[in-house]
Amino acid sequence: MGGFFGAVSKRDVVLDVFFGVDYHSHLGTRRAGLIFHEEEKGFQRQIHSIENTPFRSRFEDDLAKFAGTSGIGCISDTDPQPLLVRSHLGIFGITTVGAINNDEALVERYFSGNDSQFMAMSSGKVNSTELIAALINQKDTFEEGIRHAQELIDGSCTLMIMTEDGTLVVARDKMGRLPVLVGKDGDGHCVAFESFAYHKLGYEDAYELGPAEIVRITPSTITTTSPAGDKMKICAFMWVYYGYPNSNYEGKNVEVMRYRNGAIMAKDDREQGFMPEVDYVAGVPDSGVPHAIGYATESGMPFGRPFIKYTPTWPRSFMPSNQDVRNRVAKMKQVPVPELIQDKRLLFVDDSIVRGTQLRETVDFLYESGAKEVHMRSACPPIMYSCKYLSFSSSKSDMELIGRRVVDQLEGEEGLAHLNEYADSATERGQCLLKTICEDMGFDSLRYQSLQGMLEAIGIDPETVCTYCWNGEE
Amino acid sequence: MGGFFGAVSKRDVVLDVFFGVDYHSHLGTRRAGLIFHEEEKGFQRQIHSIENTPFRSRFEDDLAKFAGTSGIGCISDTDPQPLLVRSHLGIFGITTVGAINNDEALVERYFSGNDSQFMAMSSGKVNSTELIAALINQKDTFEEGIRHAQELIDGSCTLMIMTEDGTLVVARDKMGRLPVLVGKDGDGHCVAFESFAYHKLGYEDAYELGPAEIVRITPSTITTTSPAGDKMKICAFMWVYYGYPNSNYEGKNVEVMRYRNGAIMAKDDREQGFMPEVDYVAGVPDSGVPHAIGYATESGMPFGRPFIKYTPTWPRSFMPSNQDVRNRVAKMKQVPVPELIQDKRLLFVDDSIVRGTQLRETVDFLYESGAKEVHMRSACPPIMYSCKYLSFSSSKSDMELIGRRVVDQLEGEEGLAHLNEYADSATERGQCLLKTICEDMGFDSLRYQSLQGMLEAIGIDPETVCTYCWNGEE
Amino acid sequence: MGGFFGAVSKRDVVLDVFFGVDYHSHLGTRRAGLIFHEEEKGFQRQIHSIENTPFRSRFEDDLAKFAGTSGIGCISDTDPQPLLVRSHLGIFGITTVGAINNDEALVERYFSGNDSQFMAMSSGKVNSTELIAALINQKDTFEEGIRHAQELIDGSCTLMIMTEDGTLVVARDKMGRLPVLVGKDGDGHCVAFESFAYHKLGYEDAYELGPAEIVRITPSTITTTSPAGDKMKICAFMWVYYGYPNSNYEGKNVEVMRYRNGAIMAKDDREQGFMPEVDYVAGVPDSGVPHAIGYATESGMPFGRPFIKYTPTWPRSFMPSNQDVRNRVAKMKQVPVPELIQDKRLLFVDDSIVRGTQLRETVDFLYESGAKEVHMRSACPPIMYSCKYLSFSSSKSDMELIGRRVVDQLEGEEGLAHLNEYADSATERGQCLLKTICEDMGFDSLRYQSLQGMLEAIGIDPETVCTYCWNGEE
Amino acid sequence: MGGFFGAVSKRDVVLDVFFGVDYHSHLGTRRAGLIFHEEEKGFQRQIHSIENTPFRSRFEDDLAKFAGTSGIGCISDTDPQPLLVRSHLGIFGITTVGAINNDEALVERYFSGNDSQFMAMSSGKVNSTELIAALINQKDTFEEGIRHAQELIDGSCTLMIMTEDGTLVVARDKMGRLPVLVGKDGDGHCVAFESFAYHKLGYEDAYELGPAEIVRITPSTITTTSPAGDKMKICAFMWVYYGYPNSNYEGKNVEVMRYRNGAIMAKDDREQGFMPEVDYVAGVPDSGVPHAIGYATESGMPFGRPFIKYTPTWPRSFMPSNQDVRNRVAKMKQVPVPELIQDKRLLFVDDSIVRGTQLRETVDFLYESGAKEVHMRSACPPIMYSCKYLSFSSSKSDMELIGRRVVDQLEGEEGLAHLNEYADSATERGQCLLKTICEDMGFDSLRYQSLQGMLEAIGIDPETVCTYCWNGEE
Repeated sequence: MGGFFGAVSKRDVVLDVFFGVDYHSHLGTRRAGLIFHEEEKGFQRQIHSIENTPFRSRFEDDLAKFAGTSGIGCISDTDPQPLLVRSHLGIFGITTVGAINNDEALVERYFSGNDSQFMAMSSGKVNSTELIAALINQKDTFEEGIRHAQELIDGSCTLMIMTEDGTLVVARDKMGRLPVLVGKDGDGHCVAFESFAYHKLGYEDAYELGPAEIVRITPSTITTTSPAGDKMKICAFMWVYYGYPNSNYEGKNVEVMRYRNGAIMAKDDREQGFMPEVDYVAGVPDSGVPHAIGYATESGMPFGRPFIKYTPTWPRSFMPSNQDVRNRVAKMKQVPVPELIQDKRLLFVDDSIVRGTQLRETVDFLYESGAKEVHMRSACPPIMYSCKYLSFSSSKSDMELIGRRVVDQLEGEEGLAHLNEYADSATERGQCLLKTICEDMGFDSLRYQSLQGMLEAIGIDPETVCTYCWNGEE
Repeated sequence: MGGFFGAVSKRDVVLDVFFGVDYHSHLGTRRAGLIFHEEEKGFQRQIHSIENTPFRSRFEDDLAKFAGTSGIGCISDTDPQPLLVRSHLGIFGITTVGAINNDEALVERYFSGNDSQFMAMSSGKVNSTELIAALINQKDTFEEGIRHAQELIDGSCTLMIMTEDGTLVVARDKMGRLPVLVGKDGDGHCVAFESFAYHKLGYEDAYELGPAEIVRITPSTITTTSPAGDKMKICAFMWVYYGYPNSNYEGKNVEVMRYRNGAIMAKDDREQGFMPEVDYVAGVPDSGVPHAIGYATESGMPFGRPFIKYTPTWPRSFMPSNQDVRNRVAKMKQVPVPELIQDKRLLFVDDSIVRGTQLRETVDFLYESGAKEVHMRSACPPIMYSCKYLSFSSSKSDMELIGRRVVDQLEGEEGLAHLNEYADSATERGQCLLKTICEDMGFDSLRYQSLQGMLEAIGIDPETVCTYCWNGEE
Repeated sequence: MGGFFGAVSKRDVVLDVFFGVDYHSHLGTRRAGLIFHEEEKGFQRQIHSIENTPFRSRFEDDLAKFAGTSGIGCISDTDPQPLLVRSHLGIFGITTVGAINNDEALVERYFSGNDSQFMAMSSGKVNSTELIAALINQKDTFEEGIRHAQELIDGSCTLMIMTEDGTLVVARDKMGRLPVLVGKDGDGHCVAFESFAYHKLGYEDAYELGPAEIVRITPSTITTTSPAGDKMKICAFMWVYYGYPNSNYEGKNVEVMRYRNGAIMAKDDREQGFMPEVDYVAGVPDSGVPHAIGYATESGMPFGRPFIKYTPTWPRSFMPSNQDVRNRVAKMKQVPVPELIQDKRLLFVDDSIVRGTQLRETVDFLYESGAKEVHMRSACPPIMYSCKYLSFSSSKSDMELIGRRVVDQLEGEEGLAHLNEYADSATERGQCLLKTICEDMGFDSLRYQSLQGMLEAIGIDPETVCTYCWNGEE
Repeated sequence: MGGFFGAVSKRDVVLDVFFGVDYHSHLGTRRAGLIFHEEEKGFQRQIHSIENTPFRSRFEDDLAKFAGTSGIGCISDTDPQPLLVRSHLGIFGITTVGAINNDEALVERYFSGNDSQFMAMSSGKVNSTELIAALINQKDTFEEGIRHAQELIDGSCTLMIMTEDGTLVVARDKMGRLPVLVGKDGDGHCVAFESFAYHKLGYEDAYELGPAEIVRITPSTITTTSPAGDKMKICAFMWVYYGYPNSNYEGKNVEVMRYRNGAIMAKDDREQGFMPEVDYVAGVPDSGVPHAIGYATESGMPFGRPFIKYTPTWPRSFMPSNQDVRNRVAKMKQVPVPELIQDKRLLFVDDSIVRGTQLRETVDFLYESGAKEVHMRSACPPIMYSCKYLSFSSSKSDMELIGRRVVDQLEGEEGLAHLNEYADSATERGQCLLKTICEDMGFDSLRYQSLQGMLEAIGIDPETVCTYCWNGEE
């Protein structure tokens, strides 16, 4: 996915942006970049790979060289960013988050009306941010350009621009698939995905952009230059999986949503007679944990940690160049506590069940380690469609999804007409899917959170939440 | 503190030692080192600072150059290690963990009978491991030398030697203050502090050294060459604070001990009428969390996480060279969830209360954030003596301990005679200390785990547990 | 300035391009880059700063990752290069050397007819190579595009493109200001500025491009796709100063030209009665040395080395970030041999006298060190115009040139009309300039090589040599 | 070999020592180190490998952290240095240059009377400087200890110590095999091998140690604490090959010695009827060049440069980890100028002919490139014994020396009795050796400088010069 942070102030914001971007590190593992602007020094930019070294270590040496009363930065799971661009709109920095499904078509369309060029990446592909900048530059103002780009893009696009005079121009995706929040302190403003990032830096909540809204931000003003749209489809996974527990989106806190979500699941289990007697309710780390806490509290059964991540040195995807090392690393983060597994009845809550491969390994391990019973709960319904707005799952095809594979196995192409039923455990087909996966995986029981339950846990108007993954509704 | 890991096998052990040492990363933040031995390549050594870069990233590039059927490595909180030493005992690698209180005296003693020398560190100090090696080399065998060194050292000393033929000579401290465990697989053996480290690498428990015991380990044998002593004083803090949840020492699991410890505290609170009605029982991350889980389960009150560590990029003590950055970093790991604090009654469990400075900041923050009530529980009794065996607290003087400062404030030097009473909340003086700290810190209530409660939670013979920090008994 | 090297072959050319580019290291000090292309791996690119670390050390770690049957690389004194570009012409790599005096006008012109953009550098400037690529992309073929770009550019432009199928498209500047040579071996071809670069790699001379000529090169063919023009103006400084002694341009070797040039100066001195009796004829290192050898041989006076560069660690412009260090470094490369200075009469030959500042320091030092006489010879006439084709001198303004400053001092703006006379020591004004500088600098005598002498030493048709620096003829 | 530089002053000397050590970079290629001492910061040390990165680049980042009114540093071709040592003599820094032929015996001797230890290097060997420190520490004062060490060492030992109060204790080898010079400026003193190093830093010559002399140096005093001995054997190769042209040893400049040496060879050739008519007299870079200049001047034949080193990026032994790259690198420093070789008669002067392998490759290349005649001159007599005082040649055995191989080939073991004759071209056996090598190598003529000629060129009392390499006299 990715995330960004920016600040514009009467004072230097280098440290704010450094820490602010760092607090978005959970959103990406590949690259990060910073651009600062100060009257005397002009623009200063740095981009590094963060695949093997955390953001902070990677950029620490650059700090001394930076100075800026404005700055933007990003964590990117894809292309190098932010870019510095020069066009008839001046010189500006730009960072984007989203997904472009029609990128090659947009590149071809661009060449057809235009003798122009893109810088190519080694793959020959065009940097998404450069492509978006090119679309913006086809219009006379940033606002027109951004609307033009968002219109053409099949997918989603949330972006931030830093202009020549340090003003931030921030645009939330046209359907508001990602949150964009503005904070303020005595000297200026900042922009983030994760509200906790600026809270820790001493900023207070100042504004949350509506879908499609564009604002211009200076040290003293936040001005809407293109109004918010009527319709929003914010990603439910921000609460279920992606977001950091400390953050709020649309006023709803992530950790609290997860407790509530777990509690609803427990209530449903109890009311429907599916609550097993277990020794421990546990979460699959990290994001399953708060769902499990909610389940444990509601159920009155003890919460426990049969798996604990070894955090001191496993902060992120470690990609050693040596294949032998890589194979071993893959399995080394989750460390079991045998005393909490052997002869124990366990109920695990995972944030979601996507492909199911990792889950099967875990279950196998649990039974080998002497677990008496393993009950599994998914904090959201079965995923039936790959995300096309935020490339959140790296699945290349829907058939990588365990739900779709089982549907295919149950009734082949026929099943495509009934995906919504399958995704709903209250239906017969839903029960069938659930049963098949449960047996296939060897769980003692398996239950998915219902769509209504999850939406209730989020707590905002269900119409404003994107549920494409589950019911294919755009 | 520090930790070590070693392996000796019929096959190459480079990756085992690499990951094994990595799994001791929580025990130190300054330096790490590896020595391998293989018949053809001989010894190969590498030492790096790990202050700003995690162990794995730091040593990854070295992996390709290493080869070894024997290897030792360490995480060191003090001097560079392991060392390669040459003496009449041959060439050998050595790594040590412990504390030497009389190091300067030992150096002087050594010079007096000997025209010899040490390599000095920039500080002019002698590397502790070099000093220990020098003492060992004064005798005719490793075993005699190790006993000689342990005798002379005021403090503690656990060590591992790799000889010229790859054999590991491992010695647990004479009072067994730290655990030393041996694992085995089909090809050989390995040695660790943390049992989970070798479990994850496919080794099974094979042996746990007794106090003062020395063993020689080859791929196929574990031979006691100096027997275990009668008396043991293993550090209680291994369970309360230092150890990783997944590990067992003396057969007792860390995570389970903490649940039990929290449960005992809850039971005591309830029985003695001190259990408040709260919205959330929470742990001060990381080691307070399992104590809190135990408390919550026993008390029936909901467990929650009002503070969550930002782990993606905060794996360890980050020590940026820029002071301004350093100041800000100090406060940035713990991120609050305002929704779980505002208008909430909270009971926090911390592993221990040492100096109290950080705790005060936390409490102040909680009240500023609108907490209705803050109750504090310490998972062990008040600390009255600085550790002299493992330099576990970095306190320079006992007067840095909040307990001692309060005693001094209450009755000056007089109080020294009654420290044991102060450390026991069941006595009048104990109550007085508790009350003073509670008011001073602004808690709504404060309770310490009792010594008996803590020992009961550990679950081994109380006589074999070091309780010096609390009652000064050596 | 800068330089490039490329190869296209039936075998892998990674090492050839690595060493070939390395042999152009004397042409630039800021950045270097490599792009390789291989069918399976596609394009691979790397750009590094070489300001503090030599090219080889900087790129050595990349070698293992590269594979390519085609490759291009460059040493750049300005912008990051080579670039990978995508346009209607496909994906291609491009590297350029030259100077664009009207770059801002070209950027504006581009924006006016086009809603497009450039990536900006931190300075806000457009990368020259990106600008040239944009101009090329305005046409339907590389050849048309290159001619279009060269037409629009005020300055000079020599370039090399690597297309999607690995073919090299190489274009010499329209006036041939820089040389471009093609070598061949059994497997393929390579392209260089410095012929010795490919000689050392086992290639033989195959072709030398004429001015404005464009060729397409595959492993087996060299095809002229745009013919050479009639007129050439190759830079005289390639022989006098820039070129490496081992290279030939237009069939004329650099080292030999310099011997000949020094010999002509000596002959002129002798014939015109200006040859002093000295103890040593010496060159100002590095490029003054061969001119001095020629002078010494012709004059029969002993050659000596009163200054010797400290080469073991001074390979290039060392730019330490600390200003204090930087100041000291500036003076530390040239190390005197006091025995060859004290009480000695010395005749120094420098390649040219541009600003005169460094020379003055040298002369002052010589007299302080007890030199009896210091005679100075410049291997070319007084420089009267800043280079506008290759930005060879970093002078921002003509008034930084010592010749122009003296003219200004002698007769103010009036002098502008007589620059050619001043540049010719045979005229009265020329004598006057020479005398003024000589007295000003404190030489015992000063003489410049004549324009005819220098052209004679080069030995090609004088009409084909650029002499703009001296006589302003374009 | 190696070299060192130190300074002690009333002001900070960090930059002086940094540059002073850098100016000894030609004396070693493996490691370098610096220790500074300042009252407040105490000792600070850093050691780096310089195998792939020049000294300056490697240590630049450390500069900001250093502070010192005293400092020592070294370039080491062997073990890591300087060391910080603690003993009954206090804490001190120490750096040494020389060769210890009996190191293993000294280590064993040390262990026998002493239960002590050394830190071992990966090879298991003891660091030479640590060994020397151990010997020094066996006595009650530095002076006694140094004399003791020098007595025991079979080889040579020049060293510098920095004591706890910043005083420098400097000891020249007992036979003065290497030079040690002291410079002074207004604030303090410095110590070097190469006098030019401190001249460039603004120091003037103050003192040159005699053989075996020990001096103590403070900012204001130079005190002899152990007097110079009567006998000296300074290495002739300091002038012939090792020393930098700008340096003086025993008052004799290196560059001037080489001119004189070449001139004597030319005079001898002329007088003895062996001077060929050639087109160019040339030196084998780097150290053959000044000998050639001297020969050219005396002979009246033109000096030329048919080979020129590519210096911009070849400052030192480049040891890429990839073997394929390494093979190609070996041949790439020397770049020919074909115009100065083809159809030319050349006389080359090399500083010495050791193994002859590289020379043969050069000659083969010259004839392949069309040289008409190749005459070779060696600036010193045939080398008959491997150096045992400075490990100057890396030969493992005398049989690697071309002279010894030819003697062996001519009359087997018999020849050992006549080595002195073979080393003297004036004898019949000398002529025979010369002829054999000349034919073997394919030279048109070959001549060695005579021992007398070389000693005359050095210009000091021949008795004080070590000529062991040629005549085996100790």
